Amino acid sequence: NPNIALLKGSYLFPEINLRKKQYLAEHPEASLISLGIGDTTEPIPPSIAQSLADFSLGLGTLDGYSGYGQEQGKHVLREKIAAKIYSHSVQPDEVYVSDGAKCDLGRLQTLFGNDISIAVQDPAYPVYSEGSLIQGVKEIISMPCYPENQFFPDLGSVPRTDLIYFCSPNNPTGAVATKAQLEKLVRFAEANRSIIIFDSAYANYIQDPTIPKSIYEIDGAKKVAIEVGSFSKLAGFTGVRLGWTVIPDELKYDDGTSVKADWHRLTSTIFNGASNIAQAGGCAVLDEKGLKEISSLTQFYLENARIIKETLEGLGHVVFGGVNAPYLWLRFKGQNSWDIFQQFLDKFQIITTPGSGFGRAGDEYIRLTAFGHRKDILEAAARLKKHTNDH
Amino acid sequence: NPNIALLKGSYLFPEINLRKKQYLAEHPEASLISLGIGDTTEPIPPSIAQSLADFSLGLGTLDGYSGYGQEQGKHVLREKIAAKIYSHSVQPDEVYVSDGAKCDLGRLQTLFGNDISIAVQDPAYPVYSEGSLIQGVKEIISMPCYPENQFFPDLGSVPRTDLIYFCSPNNPTGAVATKAQLEKLVRFAEANRSIIIFDSAYANYIQDPTIPKSIYEIDGAKKVAIEVGSFSKLAGFTGVRLGWTVIPDELKYDDGTSVKADWHRLTSTIFNGASNIAQAGGCAVLDEKGLKEISSLTQFYLENARIIKETLEGLGHVVFGGVNAPYLWLRFKGQNSWDIFQQFLDKFQIITTPGSGFGRAGDEYIRLTAFGHRKDILEAAARLKKHTNDH
Repeated sequence: NPNIALLKGSYLFPEINLRKKQYLAEHPEASLISLGIGDTTEPIPPSIAQSLADFSLGLGTLDGYSGYGQEQGKHVLREKIAAKIYSHSVQPDEVYVSDGAKCDLGRLQTLFGNDISIAVQDPAYPVYSEGSLIQGVKEIISMPCYPENQFFPDLGSVPRTDLIYFCSPNNPTGAVATKAQLEKLVRFAEANRSIIIFDSAYANYIQDPTIPKSIYEIDGAKKVAIEVGSFSKLAGFTGVRLGWTVIPDELKYDDGTSVKADWHRLTSTIFNGASNIAQAGGCAVLDEKGLKEISSLTQFYLENARIIKETLEGLGHVVFGGVNAPYLWLRFKGQNSWDIFQQFLDKFQIITTPGSGFGRAGDEYIRLTAFGHRKDILEAAARLKKHTNDH
Repeated sequence: NPNIALLKGSYLFPEINLRKKQYLAEHPEASLISLGIGDTTEPIPPSIAQSLADFSLGLGTLDGYSGYGQEQGKHVLREKIAAKIYSHSVQPDEVYVSDGAKCDLGRLQTLFGNDISIAVQDPAYPVYSEGSLIQGVKEIISMPCYPENQFFPDLGSVPRTDLIYFCSPNNPTGAVATKAQLEKLVRFAEANRSIIIFDSAYANYIQDPTIPKSIYEIDGAKKVAIEVGSFSKLAGFTGVRLGWTVIPDELKYDDGTSVKADWHRLTSTIFNGASNIAQAGGCAVLDEKGLKEISSLTQFYLENARIIKETLEGLGHVVFGGVNAPYLWLRFKGQNSWDIFQQFLDKFQIITTPGSGFGRAGDEYIRLTAFGHRKDILEAAARLKKHTNDH
């Protein structure tokens, strides 16, 4: 597949790890704090971990054992996602359980093949464009998002594409799209007969009731949008692997045929369902007790975000995101993002993510995540204050 | 993606389920025995289920929690697979842990893209050709396997292709390729500069020490073959989801570049690793205790195979497979396999898999699996004897 050669030499996070290792080799005494990769740090809440364990032990018994399940996921989990995440506004059989958003994005890219055009926000999660490049997609349109346009693309200047990738709360900028903005996006997709792939992996961080947590809160969205969700940042399932994709019945190709029917066939052919243990855990997440527990977890990370944001703003930095979102996006006008990365490493021993890893529009930025133990967040805040004031 | 329309209306097993439901609707009192889908039925052995549970509970603690792992799998598991499955004949970093063979086959098909030719055994596991069709592969060569050629393709009449899919012990025929046959296959791939995708998902059923359990037991295979393995039928992990793919360092494209480097990049981009719980279970499988436990499990299913085989042969049937393999392949000359399927359903209330689901060469056959509770296997044997003698 000659398309793989089109990808840059290495994926963003392996490159960061490499630089981190180099630094540690030169400074073996350094105690680094990682606000880089967006990886959860807190334990899975008790009732959910217990459910994972109970189901696992059950697999060792005749009554509790189960083999292959439906590729599309256990019905009880599909029902719970439809009920608890979408308040019944989607049907259980429109919900396809997956082993995570990244993997399902890859399968969606296989679904749509190579003979399509796509639009992606810039900056954006690299998988949208890199996964498409692997498939052989030739036409990738960039939609720059920056403070001057409130991190929402200037749709008037975006050409028509078959797919539009959109992520809110956004990774990496932490921007959350308002209802009015998402209305515009859905109308734009309708007018262009485009399909939106809406990444809602961080929806649980939205606390403001006026901001939509799902694209389906917008009228007409079921005719134009697929939504990709995840238990990773919702319940600390980054390692357990569980997510879902909603493909509404109303979503049709231009010729009137069903996108869902193709998706069903594709997932039956090259996927075999998420781990049944992870799915049992997902059911526990969406129980009354689990929902309370994960709400505390969300609040914990949002408090981390607030601490970092206030610290940085107190030091005069320009900080976007960090409210209704677990990511903070820092601008350093005129600087190169790998240089900023290096400064944070050298000066504060803090690992960040260089904005250019997310696209050209990220050049003057770094991303900080709110995922971390509280003591590390407080220590990072202290280092930022101390070493900034030193100069 | 217009290629999805090339697939038949439904995947084999959903179609069988439909027919089963129809039968049960008409005969609500029937007690069906399924020897159809190759799905494990016995509990996961105790020490392994305990490890899954222990790891799960640990995820609820600060010390035991982990988030994203390496997309390629935990190093300790890659080491154990290299050591225990391959007796150190492959290196840990040539082993890529996956969420199962079917999913990794899909990713391999993405790796190689659409501008290739492939050869598949006929009959064969449908995913080889169907997953390739989805990718847009146009040239699919069929290699018929039947009793007259000892279920090994007549390579002299097979044209050169870029990829050759080969499965031993075979699904569906239960045929196991001898060392001499695999030598021929590797020499054929070398001469044609083809890459073999060797599916070893049933290798643990091989009891005859003269039969290779891995393609890498053949000299030179590391230069021409990828091997796809699975914990599904090894440890009852069909629902837990865990497998692996070996991509040797020596395997190069025609231009001398590394296949492994592309695979590493691809899995980093559109995969996020198997569930960390499943990986902990995989480590337990390959411990001394776990290996003993799964050996008993393998013996159990092989005894099932022996019971069915002896019963059918005692009734005068022609049965292939069922030795060193968990599948039995029954021939009914001149009959249509969906008709045979229906006869087994009507006469014995036994679900089988029609051979035509695996390719044209399966037309006169059905597949029976050895996966089942012992009481069901014995009951199936009793029904076969009783109702055959009735006529």
